Amino acid sequence: MSRMFGRTLREAPSEAQTPGHQLMLRAAIARPLAAGLYTWLPLGFRVMKKVEQIIREEQDRIGAQEMEMPVLTPAEVWKMTGRWDMLEPITFRTKDHNGREFMVSYTHEEFVHLHAMSEILSYRQLPAMVYHFQSKGRDEVRPRAGLLRVREFVMKDAYSFDLDQAGLEKSYAAQHGAYVRTFQRLGLDAISVESDTGAMGGDIAHEFQVLTEVGDDHIAICPTGDYRANLERATHRLAAADGTFPTAERTEIATPGTTSIEALEASLGLPASAFLKTLLVKDARGQPVAVVLPGDRTLNEAKLRKRLGFVEIRFAGDADFAAAGSVPGFIGPVGLGAPVLVDTCVVSGRGYVAGANKKDAHLKDVALGRDFTAEVLDLHDVVEGDPCPKCGSPLQIKRGVEVGNIFAYGTYYAEKMNATYLAEDGTRKLFVGGSYGIGVGRSVQTIIETSHDDRGIIWPFAVAPYEVHVVALPMNDETVRAAAEGLVGTLEEKDIQVLFDDRDESAGVKFADADLIGIPFRVTVSKRSLGSKSVELKARASADAELVPHDVAADRLVDIVRRAREAAAR
Amino acid sequence: MSRMFGRTLREAPSEAQTPGHQLMLRAAIARPLAAGLYTWLPLGFRVMKKVEQIIREEQDRIGAQEMEMPVLTPAEVWKMTGRWDMLEPITFRTKDHNGREFMVSYTHEEFVHLHAMSEILSYRQLPAMVYHFQSKGRDEVRPRAGLLRVREFVMKDAYSFDLDQAGLEKSYAAQHGAYVRTFQRLGLDAISVESDTGAMGGDIAHEFQVLTEVGDDHIAICPTGDYRANLERATHRLAAADGTFPTAERTEIATPGTTSIEALEASLGLPASAFLKTLLVKDARGQPVAVVLPGDRTLNEAKLRKRLGFVEIRFAGDADFAAAGSVPGFIGPVGLGAPVLVDTCVVSGRGYVAGANKKDAHLKDVALGRDFTAEVLDLHDVVEGDPCPKCGSPLQIKRGVEVGNIFAYGTYYAEKMNATYLAEDGTRKLFVGGSYGIGVGRSVQTIIETSHDDRGIIWPFAVAPYEVHVVALPMNDETVRAAAEGLVGTLEEKDIQVLFDDRDESAGVKFADADLIGIPFRVTVSKRSLGSKSVELKARASADAELVPHDVAADRLVDIVRRAREAAAR
Repeated sequence: MSRMFGRTLREAPSEAQTPGHQLMLRAAIARPLAAGLYTWLPLGFRVMKKVEQIIREEQDRIGAQEMEMPVLTPAEVWKMTGRWDMLEPITFRTKDHNGREFMVSYTHEEFVHLHAMSEILSYRQLPAMVYHFQSKGRDEVRPRAGLLRVREFVMKDAYSFDLDQAGLEKSYAAQHGAYVRTFQRLGLDAISVESDTGAMGGDIAHEFQVLTEVGDDHIAICPTGDYRANLERATHRLAAADGTFPTAERTEIATPGTTSIEALEASLGLPASAFLKTLLVKDARGQPVAVVLPGDRTLNEAKLRKRLGFVEIRFAGDADFAAAGSVPGFIGPVGLGAPVLVDTCVVSGRGYVAGANKKDAHLKDVALGRDFTAEVLDLHDVVEGDPCPKCGSPLQIKRGVEVGNIFAYGTYYAEKMNATYLAEDGTRKLFVGGSYGIGVGRSVQTIIETSHDDRGIIWPFAVAPYEVHVVALPMNDETVRAAAEGLVGTLEEKDIQVLFDDRDESAGVKFADADLIGIPFRVTVSKRSLGSKSVELKARASADAELVPHDVAADRLVDIVRRAREAAAR
Repeated sequence: MSRMFGRTLREAPSEAQTPGHQLMLRAAIARPLAAGLYTWLPLGFRVMKKVEQIIREEQDRIGAQEMEMPVLTPAEVWKMTGRWDMLEPITFRTKDHNGREFMVSYTHEEFVHLHAMSEILSYRQLPAMVYHFQSKGRDEVRPRAGLLRVREFVMKDAYSFDLDQAGLEKSYAAQHGAYVRTFQRLGLDAISVESDTGAMGGDIAHEFQVLTEVGDDHIAICPTGDYRANLERATHRLAAADGTFPTAERTEIATPGTTSIEALEASLGLPASAFLKTLLVKDARGQPVAVVLPGDRTLNEAKLRKRLGFVEIRFAGDADFAAAGSVPGFIGPVGLGAPVLVDTCVVSGRGYVAGANKKDAHLKDVALGRDFTAEVLDLHDVVEGDPCPKCGSPLQIKRGVEVGNIFAYGTYYAEKMNATYLAEDGTRKLFVGGSYGIGVGRSVQTIIETSHDDRGIIWPFAVAPYEVHVVALPMNDETVRAAAEGLVGTLEEKDIQVLFDDRDESAGVKFADADLIGIPFRVTVSKRSLGSKSVELKARASADAELVPHDVAADRLVDIVRRAREAAAR
């Protein structure tokens, strides 16, 4: 420790936002070079490599082959699938001195398809599964919470190629199983939830979420266990429409200066659910599109993004309102000069109050299907208490950190790239694929978020930077130094990973650092313990220490570590 | 092999320029995604990881600590040392959506200094040495020869921090020793040569060069063994000047239309060495600077770049000639309106023919020190036969591939970044540093360039993708299949890395692929060999095969592999 590059901090820097972020910085796991750009210091590097190795072993176990694709990826290939433009808002781009464009890779679906096209000639070579660990860039507007949301990170991304949908389902299940084992071995209590496919294409996707208050994601969970979905994807059982229209015809009412649902509730004395909330956004060509939800529901941007094929919602400006024949604050679906998307929570047989598309006026008794037509789709956030889509039980909403995701995109990329193989019947068929990601750094910090106490990190054995922490007290006592160095030497000979606190520091500093760094087993070699021919052994996760005779300490530790290794490899 | 992602090619693609490039592509080691951007296919990935692991072990052996710095690096830190501008021509840059600039990292001197400033507080923590493997970007105008010159590659870069120059010398020597061992273990016959420090700063640097005709670099080598230097740095013993000026005054001569040294030689009947060749380039501020060499010497651009502080020479245009009071084709150092740099080969006591700075005229009997003054420095290429600067023996010029380089830059970065530690005497002192790089991919291909025959690669055991190649012939014979699978199973149980050719291919195809891929030991399990209760064993590097009794084949292979591993670990 006297020579370790990376020093522990007594206090967390003020910008540290979560317990894991604070401990990660204090224990010298990683350091920021700039917002969202981190360096793994030697201690954290060891953890990261152990996490990587566990992921690797579980990928190898299901027959995935490791390879490595580059960080810089040529624009023309991204353009084949339309993702060059789609991903613009959240990616880093660069040009060479001839003006040729590249992306700092976001993922590698396009590129692995290119490789498959040249390496896989016939059905005999399928199924195939490959993976790599590679740096990814994401131009996050708001990097946050240390390694939880960064602008550069290493992802394990795997890709499967199958003959057909049935093959894909097998590969997907194999990866799902590998993920369950991986996160279990990492000491992460990750649950798989249905998720949006986002910029990945296709329709079937799952995320592995670790439930914790520090998470960015919201997960709808049915307490009966039959439904779990990211809010970006979650649905609920809808009340049946009664199928009748309101008897009253729609009429205009004056609502001077009343531009929000809250203001309308107050002035008309009606609940939020009585109103239609209309938002104006831009479509792929920059043309205005209206989005209509009940006044008591919030828009789920991910659901809208998916419909619009964007990675970022662009709201309309005054000119767009004018083009659609409306005014901000009083927009509504009736007679609007723009296509209308209406949320499934808008009941088609019911009369609502909606904007009249002119200043200071609303319409009442507006009914979907009678007064306006629209494309109906799920665009709202599910909220706590909404009925489960499967069983009707009230859903709970929990926060989570997404540590992995898997996508069964099928022929989404193969179609756009004309990526085919020679099938058994002599025809050319499209590859049927999926992709499977795990964020390495995010997994490391999520382990800290969920495995610590107020004194520091408690590393699960499988990912601890070292297995045994030897503390010599005081280091300048010749007997203590000799005994400690002897123990370290014996343990290292037996292939035990030892962190040796050989610093001239006080017991207080050394114990505080040992608790902070969180190595599973601590051995203290002190003047006092040696007086009773013993050393003190303490597990980080336990409150109790025990004295172990000095002459059997090494054997005892080798035995403990061996058993811990066996348990961790399972 | 029936499922391996990456297929061997009978013919090398026409763009493959060197034997190593051809074999690398044919054996499915790597594939280009774009010019200079390569993917490691699974077979090559295994080689790359073994190379990485050997480098790692030798770094760890000298006490370097592994860490990982990011690929994207913020501009403001590069600007502290002036390298943001200096490196512009050969690097990739990107901006985030707030306009903040980043470089796809070139190296990490600036960033490791930042870390040292926050992690190393006092002299007690020194010396310190860290390293990482990380992707680097280089906007090479001409990527060439596969992995030899690419636009993205993984480099192992290590950084040392010392108290003082004496400490740096120790760290530098430790890295030099680690490099010697590393390349030896990789099977590369690399020699260390003096080299230019290029964009790294400082004055002392060595490259590790593997001599081969496919190399880009030119190395001056004294056959006595006392001098080896890259041409960018090489000097030779200069003839002593006689110290007298020519008796003749300089006079103007008419040389209509004679704008090259070759034309002057012909029209005046003098050898090239009788002329001064004057080139006009731009300095850091874009102002013209003249460079003068004897007519028989060529400019070494690296030497000039170093003097100008650039990574790319910018030649002057017509406007610059006019500003300097000259004309293209007739430029000379006498009366020129620009600073003059003169090469050490220009003898100061001798009269030369030089341009007169006006159209169709030259001057004869021009003498340095009498007719013009200049900054004298070494700017020429050493050529075959020039006398060794140490012993005077005629130098040889050989081509080489640079697989590693080490730089002792001292306080070059620490000064610019004010990177200091608390010294024992209570003052703050600058870190004294060095950096040490190895190109992983270039090493892999250089191994192929120097270890192959006309049938394929001959991997040194230590970096071979697998240890044993089992070929079953034919695979559809039940006895053969059972015997081959049994052998593979037994070997894998004993932790031998086996590549199993389980394809339904002919003997010709299988043997050709085995030779191409170049695994050290090939075992053929065939109907014929099994008939004599044997399998055929052949080392890739040897012409001869031998029959080994089937029942002892596994034990024999385990023994061979064990001995090869021991030899490779040395």
